[in-house]
Amino acid sequence: MTSHNLTMKAKVYVTLKPSVLDPQGKAIHHSVELLGFENVADVRQGKYFEIALSSELSEPEAQTVVEKIAKDILANPVIEDYKVEIVQ
Amino acid sequence: MTSHNLTMKAKVYVTLKPSVLDPQGKAIHHSVELLGFENVADVRQGKYFEIALSSELSEPEAQTVVEKIAKDILANPVIEDYKVEIVQ
Repeated sequence: MTSHNLTMKAKVYVTLKPSVLDPQGKAIHHSVELLGFENVADVRQGKYFEIALSSELSEPEAQTVVEKIAKDILANPVIEDYKVEIVQ
Repeated sequence: MTSHNLTMKAKVYVTLKPSVLDPQGKAIHHSVELLGFENVADVRQGKYFEIALSSELSEPEAQTVVEKIAKDILANPVIEDYKVEIVQ
């Protein structure tokens, strides 16, 4: 364990592109309907990551680093979109 | 396909409780380090859901319905926390 001073956190949301089918979301939607919930039109599943960052980074630096991590590791840019949010 | 009038969306974030080990997050953290990213102290993976709702629901009703869906279907309350956000 390194001794980073942790005050910054990044949240990364990875979602399937709207044109990509989401069978897992469809299955959840089906369960939701079977259980009697009405008024639900669609469910889509994505991934969510919380990344703890060393506070040595400035906020714009953190944004750049996490965007690169999201693009290279967390998401598949061919079929997925991602959104990065830096939280102090 | 039902003819719901779609103007409301709910976002549900499901994360492992802080006391629960996250081997998938650890594996991602390891990859991040191998690829040379510094300043990353921890990665935790969660799930993210986008739920399209019929606009017949008021915002408090939508909150109640989606909280129940999150608790009953999307999350395992023994090991996971969830957060619901209603977006107009």
